[in-house]
Amino acid sequence: MIWDQVEFQLSAKKRGVHLVTREVMEHLPAIAHIDIGLMHLFILHTSASLALNENADPTVRHDVEKHLDVLVPENAPYYKHTYEGPDDMPAHIKSILTGNQLTIPIRKGRLALGTWQGIYLCEHRDWAGSGRRLIATVQGKGQGNNS
Amino acid sequence: MIWDQVEFQLSAKKRGVHLVTREVMEHLPAIAHIDIGLMHLFILHTSASLALNENADPTVRHDVEKHLDVLVPENAPYYKHTYEGPDDMPAHIKSILTGNQLTIPIRKGRLALGTWQGIYLCEHRDWAGSGRRLIATVQGKGQGNNS
Amino acid sequence: MIWDQVEFQLSAKKRGVHLVTREVMEHLPAIAHIDIGLMHLFILHTSASLALNENADPTVRHDVEKHLDVLVPENAPYYKHTYEGPDDMPAHIKSILTGNQLTIPIRKGRLALGTWQGIYLCEHRDWAGSGRRLIATVQGKGQGNNS
Repeated sequence: MIWDQVEFQLSAKKRGVHLVTREVMEHLPAIAHIDIGLMHLFILHTSASLALNENADPTVRHDVEKHLDVLVPENAPYYKHTYEGPDDMPAHIKSILTGNQLTIPIRKGRLALGTWQGIYLCEHRDWAGSGRRLIATVQGKGQGNNS
Repeated sequence: MIWDQVEFQLSAKKRGVHLVTREVMEHLPAIAHIDIGLMHLFILHTSASLALNENADPTVRHDVEKHLDVLVPENAPYYKHTYEGPDDMPAHIKSILTGNQLTIPIRKGRLALGTWQGIYLCEHRDWAGSGRRLIATVQGKGQGNNS
Repeated sequence: MIWDQVEFQLSAKKRGVHLVTREVMEHLPAIAHIDIGLMHLFILHTSASLALNENADPTVRHDVEKHLDVLVPENAPYYKHTYEGPDDMPAHIKSILTGNQLTIPIRKGRLALGTWQGIYLCEHRDWAGSGRRLIATVQGKGQGNNS
């Protein structure tokens, strides 16, 4: 039984939806040693989120972002939490709707993603601050003697 | 410690929200051997999704589908990803909002679902294509000598 | 390898979004013995849900609730599932959008939450009934000799 846990920081991203599968995988060499398992990815923030969707056409990420802006507008008259800027409260709500964690199967040393699936980092704030911090927890039955 | 992982295909479903608890469970005999554990269910697609909700009255599934259609309309003027049909981009967004994975507790050889909970397959595309592929990963402490 | 599973009931909550991190943790002493692991939290209901978001300012919870009411209004003309009251069908849809489960990393005997993250119980029904039931499943590599 293998357990591995790593906390790491993504590079800073501007507001929008970003494909980060490759950037995340650089931090997860333990996956290669697992025959059957799970990878849990967790974002340590409340105004950015994780999702899993189409990995090929950037217009999908564009449209996801635009539609989230429509579903959760800035400056709604009933918002009380306004002192961190007009993008802040929508960021919290978008994070809840899209989610802050993913669990993905591991099979024979690789993430068992569908052909068109990739990991999205959804940055809901306007800032150009530092990158978001994630914790990845990898567990599973090892290959060969490790089982 | 038991680990089991199976990839399987659901029967083809038309657009809408479908109760699939029984169909999923047919592929998961390993659950019966687990005393305490978790079942992770993952859909290998980006235009269909999984959810957990009311298992009794089909009108709940009808209303969920209708309201998702209102929340994520076809032909929004800002969609750029339009070349796969008007149902495609909304399908991606609905998948992100509802989610592509479930983790459900296992207790004494059974899924520990609430009385009214069932597994939903949300088919967001119009097609009458082939069934959706899922990966189920079952892990836990075995009953009796297996613990 | 440690596995622990506990079913417990939260105190009754009125309609709204509630911070329950402390109340949940009272039921999870097993976490203290885990070096690397995961805590899975599951709600056994279809009209209340779990989320993870800002743990400091109550106005965030207020605004989340208000905006969910806008996203999923009562008495939509296409709802067919109406016989359990006007708050019932929106409660099911809100539960699907926000989710009924959380998985949170465990590190060195504690939940590895971000500084601003807390567990939300989202009560979508008007009732003043009994508290919601949850199942928490804790697993991981033990500290010291337990590993």
